[in-house]
Amino acid sequence: MSPVSVPLPKAYRLLNHGPTVLVTSAHGERRNIMAAAWNMALDFDPPKIAVVIDKNTYTRELIEASGTFALNIPSRALAEATVAVGSASGRDYDKFAEHRLATFAAEQIAAPLLEGCLAWLECKVIPEPHNQQQYDLFIGEVVAAWAEPGVFHDGHWHLEADAPRSIHYVAGGAFFETGETFNVGQRG
Amino acid sequence: MSPVSVPLPKAYRLLNHGPTVLVTSAHGERRNIMAAAWNMALDFDPPKIAVVIDKNTYTRELIEASGTFALNIPSRALAEATVAVGSASGRDYDKFAEHRLATFAAEQIAAPLLEGCLAWLECKVIPEPHNQQQYDLFIGEVVAAWAEPGVFHDGHWHLEADAPRSIHYVAGGAFFETGETFNVGQRG
Repeated sequence: MSPVSVPLPKAYRLLNHGPTVLVTSAHGERRNIMAAAWNMALDFDPPKIAVVIDKNTYTRELIEASGTFALNIPSRALAEATVAVGSASGRDYDKFAEHRLATFAAEQIAAPLLEGCLAWLECKVIPEPHNQQQYDLFIGEVVAAWAEPGVFHDGHWHLEADAPRSIHYVAGGAFFETGETFNVGQRG
Repeated sequence: MSPVSVPLPKAYRLLNHGPTVLVTSAHGERRNIMAAAWNMALDFDPPKIAVVIDKNTYTRELIEASGTFALNIPSRALAEATVAVGSASGRDYDKFAEHRLATFAAEQIAAPLLEGCLAWLECKVIPEPHNQQQYDLFIGEVVAAWAEPGVFHDGHWHLEADAPRSIHYVAGGAFFETGETFNVGQRG
């Protein structure tokens, strides 16, 4: 299947359940990818997100140079790569080549999007120098969003029993998989 | 079991996997509880967190008056209550009484902690008026943290097959349960 566009007012639902994401970035010929468990939705429409990008990372350098980045939501099949790209710096080698990570072009930004993910959010930095310096906190406006239609369509996740699932980083090499879907009645 | 103290440098692990939380607050005789899917860890030590608290909420009023709040991590048994307290305002009635939610006292702050949860983070607001006004974004320092030892001990979650699980809000009355724990090797 190929990614399909997610209407921007539904983009927050890609992050609402708290998955760990991979942050991709690019500036000129340089590109990088890192893992980020510390991310959240921040607004509905226009959609905004928040993500923590440490000062020491190569990703930080590329994001500050380009003003853009993408959040890629990996499935469990990418869990090993998620740990690997979170454990070394892209200053030292091309993580995409090293870990055989294929990408495709984003629509609105330079950062590549990672193949094999469940969904993607293309973001433009809303500059907030104090947050960036004091807390390593970046706020982005989501300018395009995409999802694999087999797992997210019509504004909702559809994670059937055999569907690939998003992942939730804990520590070390440990994750939780996104688990069972359930519904509760809404009371007044 | 009774809640046991979580060492502050491990407190981020309570939120790392992206659970939906219940935000409790109090000021004087007034108290409230609301749901917040939009939360994340922001720093390790001293631990900080970020959470979105809408301007129109009663919780916002109590947090701005008291400078403190707690994040309570509910289990699936509290999912119906999580939707309910997220669907009405505490200005209109006492949500704790209405939904029969029992509480116990926090150690460092006035906000009550909700019984039946898996873990609790007591937070003091780090005032950031621009973030609060512009993005409804609150940053808190975690000043005490607690967990049910049956599910979190020695700095790690231990969600065995029959353990109560945290929940991840999607939309409407839909949630994902925190799923299977898995480990991947760390490659260089």
